[in-house]
Amino acid sequence: MGLYIGVDIGGTKVLAAEVTEKGEVARTARRTTPGRRVDVELVEDALTEAVAEVADGRHVDGVGLAAAGFVDAEGERVMFAPHLPWRADPTRSRLEARWRTRVVLDNDANCAARAELALGSASGVRDAVLVTMGTGIGGAVVLGGTLLRGRNGMAGEFGHMQVVPDGLPCECGGTGCWEQYSSGNALVRYVQARLDRPDYDDSLLDELCGGDPAKIVGPMVTEAAQAGDRLSLKAFAKVGEWLGIGLANLTAALDPELLVIGGGVSAAGDLLLAPARAALEGSLVGARHRAIPPVLRAAFGPEAGVVGAAAMARSHD
Amino acid sequence: MGLYIGVDIGGTKVLAAEVTEKGEVARTARRTTPGRRVDVELVEDALTEAVAEVADGRHVDGVGLAAAGFVDAEGERVMFAPHLPWRADPTRSRLEARWRTRVVLDNDANCAARAELALGSASGVRDAVLVTMGTGIGGAVVLGGTLLRGRNGMAGEFGHMQVVPDGLPCECGGTGCWEQYSSGNALVRYVQARLDRPDYDDSLLDELCGGDPAKIVGPMVTEAAQAGDRLSLKAFAKVGEWLGIGLANLTAALDPELLVIGGGVSAAGDLLLAPARAALEGSLVGARHRAIPPVLRAAFGPEAGVVGAAAMARSHD
Repeated sequence: MGLYIGVDIGGTKVLAAEVTEKGEVARTARRTTPGRRVDVELVEDALTEAVAEVADGRHVDGVGLAAAGFVDAEGERVMFAPHLPWRADPTRSRLEARWRTRVVLDNDANCAARAELALGSASGVRDAVLVTMGTGIGGAVVLGGTLLRGRNGMAGEFGHMQVVPDGLPCECGGTGCWEQYSSGNALVRYVQARLDRPDYDDSLLDELCGGDPAKIVGPMVTEAAQAGDRLSLKAFAKVGEWLGIGLANLTAALDPELLVIGGGVSAAGDLLLAPARAALEGSLVGARHRAIPPVLRAAFGPEAGVVGAAAMARSHD
Repeated sequence: MGLYIGVDIGGTKVLAAEVTEKGEVARTARRTTPGRRVDVELVEDALTEAVAEVADGRHVDGVGLAAAGFVDAEGERVMFAPHLPWRADPTRSRLEARWRTRVVLDNDANCAARAELALGSASGVRDAVLVTMGTGIGGAVVLGGTLLRGRNGMAGEFGHMQVVPDGLPCECGGTGCWEQYSSGNALVRYVQARLDRPDYDDSLLDELCGGDPAKIVGPMVTEAAQAGDRLSLKAFAKVGEWLGIGLANLTAALDPELLVIGGGVSAAGDLLLAPARAALEGSLVGARHRAIPPVLRAAFGPEAGVVGAAAMARSHD
């Protein structure tokens, strides 16, 4: 079977995990991400410690790295990451030399997709589109059973497809990007803009945020919606509708068999997916003359990155 | 070498052509498309006559059909076509039996892409997106050197990706579709809406349309723009900008090596492509951290369909 470790390198924390062949997380270690303005070596030391803690003296057969940033098409370098110090360093080969085991590298959204493809909701599917809804939108395209990486390793950046001309400004420098309308941030913005209206003065969110709307985060909106809060349900209806419109755009272009929605916001399940399915069916071209792809929730939650990274390391043998 | 014939079956006319291995059109025959409310047999008779006229008694090694409609994923049937009578008839196998030669079938946009891929601007490229701008927008996705057909054979319907919420109504039943803003029809609509303004009373279009703006068609706008007409140049700037925005969306999703623009509107060359390139560079996510794909004009014009259909027939041997 062998010992394969997946490492998810996020902007705030590093999670390393031993992952079994079936995708079960057996043993984990965590570190705080040292930040973007530090020496690259500090981040690589943190990764080394986390991997060593999981290995606990055992031989490691392979490590998969899931990085929150742009990874080049060859899977060698993190070209740029908003919250990490790497800038085209040869990360993969350097850590492979340091750890004396096989190391593979991809971005976190691709690794989450690899988890779904190998062991989750897209298992056995040839053509699928995977959308990861967290703070923003990430994603991946699977064609012929293979993950599309693209010329620059940047395929799947669905969140920055423009859906509103001269729309909301986006962190990417553009305007009207899809993730401004359909994401955890969009949920929060929706409720914050309406919470002081008289017809929502009974909203559960007031209590959940301790009276300070600036402290509202996505999971609070999910919790309130699940408890029947009207404002939060409206936020999911709107964000879900925008999800469906974007899925219709991707389906018009790629005509996949399946659409899989993962990331933190997907924990809301059908609160998000039901309006998305309705909008997809309502706006997809030729809907009456085609099979409309099912919209499934991802099988893996916050552990998708490590599971997919470990699966990638395992499949490289 | 063999005799291979491509047949482009459009809404108004049928073009059959002998096409050489190098993509040269050697001999052609034309018929009027009998229409959508007639017996399927009438259309198939017209195709049979056109193919026989091109063959002129010689043995035919294969025929490729490019149909203006939705072709199923197996390339067996025209599922639906606005201007043709087929409704899921087994067209490919029926004509193969009738003609006693190999027959292959795909939709016209895919065949145009096959021409570019085999012999034109995308020759030798592994990952490319091809956009066909005529009355509307069609297109094709090439990944790993292979044309993506999709689950329903409907991949590449870029024209119906929504770019404006509650935007202009589209023939597909949706609103705000890309082709409403970037197409031959969009060019015509742009100039028609402005031709009676005092600052455009010297527009060349007045003369070209014989004083009746309702008679303006896309090629008139191209002709006027090429002669320096200000209104027509503005129309191309706007339609080209929208082209670039849509190309940025497709590039965010697929990160291709190359973008190829074909169809009637592409005859305007850089009048269309220069503003498209500027908008692509201006709105593409991560533009400073990636190679931006070149935007090339397609090598084949109105003959792309027959050239690609014949190339498809040839490659099936």
